[in-house]
Amino acid sequence: MTTITGTAAQIHSEATPTAPVGVARLGVGILGATGYTGQELIRLLVAHPRVRIAALGSRQQAAQPVGPAFPWLGGDARLPERFEDDLADPAALVDRGIDVLFSALPHGAFAARAAAYRAAGLCVIDLAADFRPGAATEWSLRHGAEHPAPELLDDAIYGLTEWVDWTAPRAAGRPALVANPGCYATAILLATLPVVAAGLWSGAPLVATALSGVSGAGRTPSPGTHFVECGQGAAPYRVGETHAHRTEIRALFERHAPAGAPAGAFVMNPHLVPMARGIVATVTIPLSGTIDEAAARALFAGRYEGSAFVRLLPDGALPETRHVRGSNRCDLAVRVVADGTMLLVVSVLDNLVKGAAGQAVQNLNHLMGWPDDTGLPREAWPCA
Amino acid sequence: MTTITGTAAQIHSEATPTAPVGVARLGVGILGATGYTGQELIRLLVAHPRVRIAALGSRQQAAQPVGPAFPWLGGDARLPERFEDDLADPAALVDRGIDVLFSALPHGAFAARAAAYRAAGLCVIDLAADFRPGAATEWSLRHGAEHPAPELLDDAIYGLTEWVDWTAPRAAGRPALVANPGCYATAILLATLPVVAAGLWSGAPLVATALSGVSGAGRTPSPGTHFVECGQGAAPYRVGETHAHRTEIRALFERHAPAGAPAGAFVMNPHLVPMARGIVATVTIPLSGTIDEAAARALFAGRYEGSAFVRLLPDGALPETRHVRGSNRCDLAVRVVADGTMLLVVSVLDNLVKGAAGQAVQNLNHLMGWPDDTGLPREAWPCA
Amino acid sequence: MTTITGTAAQIHSEATPTAPVGVARLGVGILGATGYTGQELIRLLVAHPRVRIAALGSRQQAAQPVGPAFPWLGGDARLPERFEDDLADPAALVDRGIDVLFSALPHGAFAARAAAYRAAGLCVIDLAADFRPGAATEWSLRHGAEHPAPELLDDAIYGLTEWVDWTAPRAAGRPALVANPGCYATAILLATLPVVAAGLWSGAPLVATALSGVSGAGRTPSPGTHFVECGQGAAPYRVGETHAHRTEIRALFERHAPAGAPAGAFVMNPHLVPMARGIVATVTIPLSGTIDEAAARALFAGRYEGSAFVRLLPDGALPETRHVRGSNRCDLAVRVVADGTMLLVVSVLDNLVKGAAGQAVQNLNHLMGWPDDTGLPREAWPCA
Amino acid sequence: MTTITGTAAQIHSEATPTAPVGVARLGVGILGATGYTGQELIRLLVAHPRVRIAALGSRQQAAQPVGPAFPWLGGDARLPERFEDDLADPAALVDRGIDVLFSALPHGAFAARAAAYRAAGLCVIDLAADFRPGAATEWSLRHGAEHPAPELLDDAIYGLTEWVDWTAPRAAGRPALVANPGCYATAILLATLPVVAAGLWSGAPLVATALSGVSGAGRTPSPGTHFVECGQGAAPYRVGETHAHRTEIRALFERHAPAGAPAGAFVMNPHLVPMARGIVATVTIPLSGTIDEAAARALFAGRYEGSAFVRLLPDGALPETRHVRGSNRCDLAVRVVADGTMLLVVSVLDNLVKGAAGQAVQNLNHLMGWPDDTGLPREAWPCA
Repeated sequence: MTTITGTAAQIHSEATPTAPVGVARLGVGILGATGYTGQELIRLLVAHPRVRIAALGSRQQAAQPVGPAFPWLGGDARLPERFEDDLADPAALVDRGIDVLFSALPHGAFAARAAAYRAAGLCVIDLAADFRPGAATEWSLRHGAEHPAPELLDDAIYGLTEWVDWTAPRAAGRPALVANPGCYATAILLATLPVVAAGLWSGAPLVATALSGVSGAGRTPSPGTHFVECGQGAAPYRVGETHAHRTEIRALFERHAPAGAPAGAFVMNPHLVPMARGIVATVTIPLSGTIDEAAARALFAGRYEGSAFVRLLPDGALPETRHVRGSNRCDLAVRVVADGTMLLVVSVLDNLVKGAAGQAVQNLNHLMGWPDDTGLPREAWPCA
Repeated sequence: MTTITGTAAQIHSEATPTAPVGVARLGVGILGATGYTGQELIRLLVAHPRVRIAALGSRQQAAQPVGPAFPWLGGDARLPERFEDDLADPAALVDRGIDVLFSALPHGAFAARAAAYRAAGLCVIDLAADFRPGAATEWSLRHGAEHPAPELLDDAIYGLTEWVDWTAPRAAGRPALVANPGCYATAILLATLPVVAAGLWSGAPLVATALSGVSGAGRTPSPGTHFVECGQGAAPYRVGETHAHRTEIRALFERHAPAGAPAGAFVMNPHLVPMARGIVATVTIPLSGTIDEAAARALFAGRYEGSAFVRLLPDGALPETRHVRGSNRCDLAVRVVADGTMLLVVSVLDNLVKGAAGQAVQNLNHLMGWPDDTGLPREAWPCA
Repeated sequence: MTTITGTAAQIHSEATPTAPVGVARLGVGILGATGYTGQELIRLLVAHPRVRIAALGSRQQAAQPVGPAFPWLGGDARLPERFEDDLADPAALVDRGIDVLFSALPHGAFAARAAAYRAAGLCVIDLAADFRPGAATEWSLRHGAEHPAPELLDDAIYGLTEWVDWTAPRAAGRPALVANPGCYATAILLATLPVVAAGLWSGAPLVATALSGVSGAGRTPSPGTHFVECGQGAAPYRVGETHAHRTEIRALFERHAPAGAPAGAFVMNPHLVPMARGIVATVTIPLSGTIDEAAARALFAGRYEGSAFVRLLPDGALPETRHVRGSNRCDLAVRVVADGTMLLVVSVLDNLVKGAAGQAVQNLNHLMGWPDDTGLPREAWPCA
Repeated sequence: MTTITGTAAQIHSEATPTAPVGVARLGVGILGATGYTGQELIRLLVAHPRVRIAALGSRQQAAQPVGPAFPWLGGDARLPERFEDDLADPAALVDRGIDVLFSALPHGAFAARAAAYRAAGLCVIDLAADFRPGAATEWSLRHGAEHPAPELLDDAIYGLTEWVDWTAPRAAGRPALVANPGCYATAILLATLPVVAAGLWSGAPLVATALSGVSGAGRTPSPGTHFVECGQGAAPYRVGETHAHRTEIRALFERHAPAGAPAGAFVMNPHLVPMARGIVATVTIPLSGTIDEAAARALFAGRYEGSAFVRLLPDGALPETRHVRGSNRCDLAVRVVADGTMLLVVSVLDNLVKGAAGQAVQNLNHLMGWPDDTGLPREAWPCA
């Protein structure tokens, strides 16, 4: 094409850019690959420049070809050819060059197995609730039995990425076990921890009203996820002090509050709204003193300065789920109300990305010492 | 059909039931008939057994035939044939046997004209904010000018139907002016007034987080109501202490609070969610003392006992917008949290019915001394 | 309210209209009351002035209270208090004054039982496919066995209401068995039978492309009705010559075509689109000669003249599903294309109303000799 | 992190891969950057490894900062800082190293200006209809005037990428003008040209029934794109022989049909359905002879063999819009009906990607001699 002028002419004659040569990719396996969280891990990891997906576990589809399970991939060549049954032999995974295992199995399905993978030398990133703070208590409430691996609980890293001190895990001398936070927990904690950690919460009830998209309910069909039942309405559920994920949130409040700070009630009001992805958490925090808008902004801006994904919006703007759909971002807005005695914080994220698979990959990046945002999208999908 | 047996045989031979004979119907006019609220008035009033729609005003469609404007009516014969331009001559309306005028015009468009209709002997039911409590202040903020009919403000009935003492208006000796409440105000006030009126609110911030369907934004197309912009996401807007309808809510708190009760901050966090109709208000009320579940339920059950439309759900149930879609009901649930020091109330209604046109018709029923639920649906639309 | 003048004063003093006195209501039972079609029967029949719902059958909820199953009814008092298990004793139903049984059970579940109800003297209106034209063939394909009641097939009335000669059933001397048409069949047949019956179809392939809302797939949760799987996309399914309901459509073509008319291929391309209710059928019919717009309109206008529910739209208009949502109407538009050699017909209806429960009630009206539209809405729900 | 073993240890110590060094990026400008098509160009081009977006034109937002206009980008640094007014000076663009201009302006807004950009040495890729086949006729119908640049029409490349012979443009000796196809045209032509080009169409009416998402109607708010008006229904529009984009489709039929093949009628029935993105075209093609399934599949598989984006689905599968959302793919399925005398083809694509911006980038890739899929996603967004 002789008519392209200037730089274009040069560009035309140069070689097409290729992937970096000679860099081995980290082998990873995914358990529970066909759920919504599993699919999202696949979406992110096939595009991750340092990773190759080496094994996909699915009991229901064991030995079946992978292609037809993910028609949105259009026959992608970057995946293993077939699902394997549950990836139950850790040593075999290591022999195949797999160093990290993501578990996207339902709550309760992986806890008893985690120790074996670590013993074989695999890092484990678990996207269920089994190793999160308070898991021992929650497990006994849920299953009426003792947690199957209580010895791992203290050792697990609660992977709310921006609030983890990564020095310790990297120096730990054993393969990491990451307990990836829940989607509600991520939205609510990113919105509240700066205030709680600064000792500003008065201890009067902190109330988080949250809106979730339907993918948060998982892929198994149920009456509540039927299009006709949920597709044109909004419905509160497990409001007040009943939602199971309050436990990890309260545990983090305690972990990060300054010594002597008052322990307060935490009220969480989730609502299901008719969208596929997204969470809004609108949180009110009664303060021990008063604050002004500038100080409130400074508190959040300072805490998340330099973060690739957590972002305080410009003055006056409010976050919307559509602006983070598909992205690993969490967008925040802060307002002072009630004569400076209460903070109102709105946080928004994509429950399958920053609220699940994206944060899991972000944690992998930190474990490996890679830049925080390697292979992770900041940009959302427009018009989705 | 000789084979139908028993009662059916009888039924078959009997005359088809017909409308009551000899009962004149009340003539009504509707201003702003083509907006969402106007359309909803038409839906309800064509089915109302005591009313006939005698005039439809629309500036944009003046003199145009009515049928094509409402294709969902399928060519209904119960409407006037053509739109009229603005129904600007009150005396002419009276001459045509019209006794009640509904105004579904936008905020600000009708205030200056109300007095003339009343002077001519028409009752007026205004669905905009112009005559609601606090309207004088809101008007000056909004329009930068004085309210055009301040002398009517004290006289207007704030038509939160279940909280109106109907004795006074019926004995008033002049045509009623009803200021029909806003949709958010109706949802939030029905959820909070029993507590506020009982003197139980401590005065610490009362926080109402609300979700609204898109019809609440009106029919005029705008970026925010474009399907691609709002159809798959949730977005907070005018949160904290900025939404205009906080004024009427705060005024009602003051009106119904016992003397000497503390005045508290009111925080209102509206969200737009992708559904056509419906409002959820999830409200937390800090209490001056403590309360238990039974007392909380008794407070609400007692207040709304005998109400055709406001309903405390059975223990354990939570309301959903789809269960009130198309209905004039407001469904409520109450929970005690924070060791009895806070009430959590969830209310749900259809913003176009109990939140607008339905409540307007309910107010008409009360003005006329007809049963509360004349012509108003309790049942919602299933699978809508 | 002394100030209401003129007619209003009179109205105010008159008695509230009440239901006609002394008219017994027809007792009906509903099998499969909790599915979408069953719910819709309930919606229509509680409002029907000549009917009372005397029994609701549900195996899964036998003996359970009815109220919580239909929260959209808001605790309606017009229903039986509890579900009964399957209404399996016809004689007992008759003893209780029930004369008509609606079956909204899934395809195949009722066929073997129908004869017993008729023998006991009950009219039966079956909303499944079991007694529709071609059912014997379809049954053996579907179930790999012979139809359980072949002797009833010739006797069943195919209840495409506007195309039934009601003289015969009324004179039949035995309780009617109505095979209520499928939703696709209703939309496609109302759009094509005027042309087929006039002998104008050339016999070249007649192609019906159809769009259906998700309620057409039934209430049982499945991957295909999960909000995340179907909520933002369109998907063709069983296209070409594979959809089971082609059988009843083809049978009707044969029944209504003039003797000697060519038998042609029938291609049916259904698509699932993200709406709760509604069907669009866009049909092309190659003609044996040529026709002009006026003649095409006259053909349809003539055929459906006087029909309460089937309606040819004014010139230039096209039907939309939202304009028939909740209504028993079927709206039609006709266009001439390809130099007059092909007719394009678009028909639109609500799959749960004219496509199921509404047409079933319409058939009941005809069986009983009541006006066609008794208890049936012409108007749709606006803004739903 | 000492405990990562095997390959992971190596990986950890290696440098993070970076963008290729020393490769200049092609400078491009975008006119009409804030519409849906413009946004989509931005989404694709910020991720394109050989391109930099050097100028964004927007009249409405001239001189405004770019960031707030695209909140989904989360403050992306890869864009120019401010919008410019209309990029009206071609020479200035060249001076700034811009070699290619994309126009995403509405139909009719760019035609008169195209020549000036080419004269200055810029390649132009126009996403509107102004230079597509038949544009002269369409222009006069639409605007009641002569096309402003008829001399460019013959020279414009109709960029249905897979059907372009790229040898000629590359050797043309002047900057290319690409007329990017419409979204309906792309879906319908990819589904039909293999049949038409093989001389198999009989000439009897070819009927394309199509379903489009709402983004196809553009970003300017209108009654038809209001969520409440279109969000829960399906609506046919401009059916039969009235849609403007039939012109380019018919022109391509003529261009690719073998000499002497019969010219037939083309009927196109578009429907708006409630999804943001996506097109389904379900097409029936009457054949001059008969064909069997194997031959039909071979025809399509052969024609699109080696294509990165056009893909015949495996036997038995049908395409769905959600499987191509965000992707540049077009998925196809073929069925033989009517005893082998008719082909049924279903094609699915994302109207903003393969139907607009993606195909535009694909055309850029070809113009530049880069691999077809440079910077273009094959994979779709799951759960979107």
